[in-house]
Amino acid sequence: MKTITINTPSCNSVIYCGNGAFVERTALLKDKKLFIITDSNVYKLYKSHIESAFGDSPAYVLPAGERSKNYHQLLKILSAMLKAGVTRSSTVVAFGGGVVGDIAGLAASLYMRGVNLIQIPTTLLSQVDSSVGGKTAVDFEGVKNIIGAFYQPYEVIVDPLFLRTLPRRELRCGLGEIIKYGALDSGIYRKLIENKNTIFSEQFMEGITYDCIAHKAEVVTADERDTGGKRKTLNLGHTTGHAFELYYKRKSHGEFVLIGMYYEIYIAKRLGMCDAAYADTLIDLIKRVIKNVPAYEDASKAAQFAKFDKKNTQVSRISLIAPKCEGESVEITLPAEQYCKLIEDCSAYLQENKA
Amino acid sequence: MKTITINTPSCNSVIYCGNGAFVERTALLKDKKLFIITDSNVYKLYKSHIESAFGDSPAYVLPAGERSKNYHQLLKILSAMLKAGVTRSSTVVAFGGGVVGDIAGLAASLYMRGVNLIQIPTTLLSQVDSSVGGKTAVDFEGVKNIIGAFYQPYEVIVDPLFLRTLPRRELRCGLGEIIKYGALDSGIYRKLIENKNTIFSEQFMEGITYDCIAHKAEVVTADERDTGGKRKTLNLGHTTGHAFELYYKRKSHGEFVLIGMYYEIYIAKRLGMCDAAYADTLIDLIKRVIKNVPAYEDASKAAQFAKFDKKNTQVSRISLIAPKCEGESVEITLPAEQYCKLIEDCSAYLQENKA
Repeated sequence: MKTITINTPSCNSVIYCGNGAFVERTALLKDKKLFIITDSNVYKLYKSHIESAFGDSPAYVLPAGERSKNYHQLLKILSAMLKAGVTRSSTVVAFGGGVVGDIAGLAASLYMRGVNLIQIPTTLLSQVDSSVGGKTAVDFEGVKNIIGAFYQPYEVIVDPLFLRTLPRRELRCGLGEIIKYGALDSGIYRKLIENKNTIFSEQFMEGITYDCIAHKAEVVTADERDTGGKRKTLNLGHTTGHAFELYYKRKSHGEFVLIGMYYEIYIAKRLGMCDAAYADTLIDLIKRVIKNVPAYEDASKAAQFAKFDKKNTQVSRISLIAPKCEGESVEITLPAEQYCKLIEDCSAYLQENKA
Repeated sequence: MKTITINTPSCNSVIYCGNGAFVERTALLKDKKLFIITDSNVYKLYKSHIESAFGDSPAYVLPAGERSKNYHQLLKILSAMLKAGVTRSSTVVAFGGGVVGDIAGLAASLYMRGVNLIQIPTTLLSQVDSSVGGKTAVDFEGVKNIIGAFYQPYEVIVDPLFLRTLPRRELRCGLGEIIKYGALDSGIYRKLIENKNTIFSEQFMEGITYDCIAHKAEVVTADERDTGGKRKTLNLGHTTGHAFELYYKRKSHGEFVLIGMYYEIYIAKRLGMCDAAYADTLIDLIKRVIKNVPAYEDASKAAQFAKFDKKNTQVSRISLIAPKCEGESVEITLPAEQYCKLIEDCSAYLQENKA
């Protein structure tokens, strides 16, 4: 088990990574007053783990899926916490994927203006991304993550144990974020290139997960509140990914990040802002995870949803983070029309080059 | 115009106090993207001030009154912010009393995980108390302030201008909190005793408001997140005040704080934990503001609601902060039964000694 620490003005957060982390760390919670938040899938798969780790602590089980990330569920959780007699000295345990972590984190931050929070991410995506860094949120009126808070868990438990039950689609989602880290961090990039034939193996994922979290921890420590500093780079692929997610809905967040990255790398290449040979190695990695990056007939219409992305504070211009060269990214700001046109071009290119 | 600064790990907050502060400080906001949150009373009384200070900035007008402090209104505000195109670079202006400040502060903290916030308190109570220190909240399922956040305004504008239109009842509420500061701070106590015949005068209120904010600023700087340190002392009178507020509902928060203080001083005297002669001078001050402190037939039943107070993390015991001697307070923790019995005794005493 390895540890990574995040020290921010608001909190010290410790991340415990590795095989055995779940059993070892939860054993220390026996005397604590806990409130568990999980979802129906995780509950079904890990009922015995929940019982042995958390005994008969009160729990709230969300319906599995992105759709649960709304204020109705948030209020239901807060109501359940009230009924269970959760107090300021209680600890909320978020046990699940990104949706569970986001909504449980927000509930923990709001209840009595904040109770202790432990994140136990059970998907590859939430392990490398959302469980670390304190961003919590729910969607509201069709806008992703528009209601939220910065709220650091004091502990994150990252155990590869939970990856074994993940469907391949879920692994793809996590690998999308891992490739994103590769586009930002030279060390992660090299490991991805060296192991490109075995990126779906448990052994590779366990090691790279630690590297990705270490990268994110460094960024979050430097710019906790995402105020125009380093943290913005973590949105690589997300401007377009979120726009497509809002418009097409069908796929999951992680898949849209992979697709968004593809489109944004295309844009950076077209504008001559990314080294072409390097861009192709990233495209190759993306295609190893998601074979057929979709072409969309109405891609430019979908792209208009990028202006609702909260990073784009001026609606007439769209900002995105793209890879530049190994270990470096660049912020590209475009007039909305030009951005939409480039998205359309990328879609046409994909249509022409269909396998 | 005088200034007070609060420096906490999360924010620097500057409080501008005095005649003319409103016009002087809002003149600097002309080029900012604002979103105004106020209530129907304040909007009616200060329409021309709002127009000249904030132009045609989008606004949300809450129905006046404590009942608006709920999640329905919170969601309506967030929805209005979304429709108005509020972005990360916008500033939310909370223009009104405690309810406006609490709910607007929470909305500002949640929207896009936090946008800039200016508090302009228009009641004596919110000027000396809720606008300063970053506590925001709404009530939920009958529990006061159970959903909230710590979120510092970067600026607070405290102008006695707004006190002129306040009904006497509102002034009483503010004076309740001011007497509370007197029970904690020797300087404020002496000013109250020296000016006890003129505490309702505008001149006295303007000066003492500054002193109370300066006291609170010092406490908040030392213990922003109210984690068992100095900030707890600001709850003097509030354990019983909140319990009565939940049970009897009819009066406003400020009045219940006055009543709660009376009952808690009675308890401290009975337990020999407060100097009796000193306690009587505080009681005298309270009675100058609220002549007839009410006796309640079912006071011990109401007192049981104290266990829902979020400061009381162990439900079988009740904690309260009481004055001890000039400039000093003491935390008293009692078994719930004993606390309820003492509340009952105080009520009986009040019944016997009715004017």
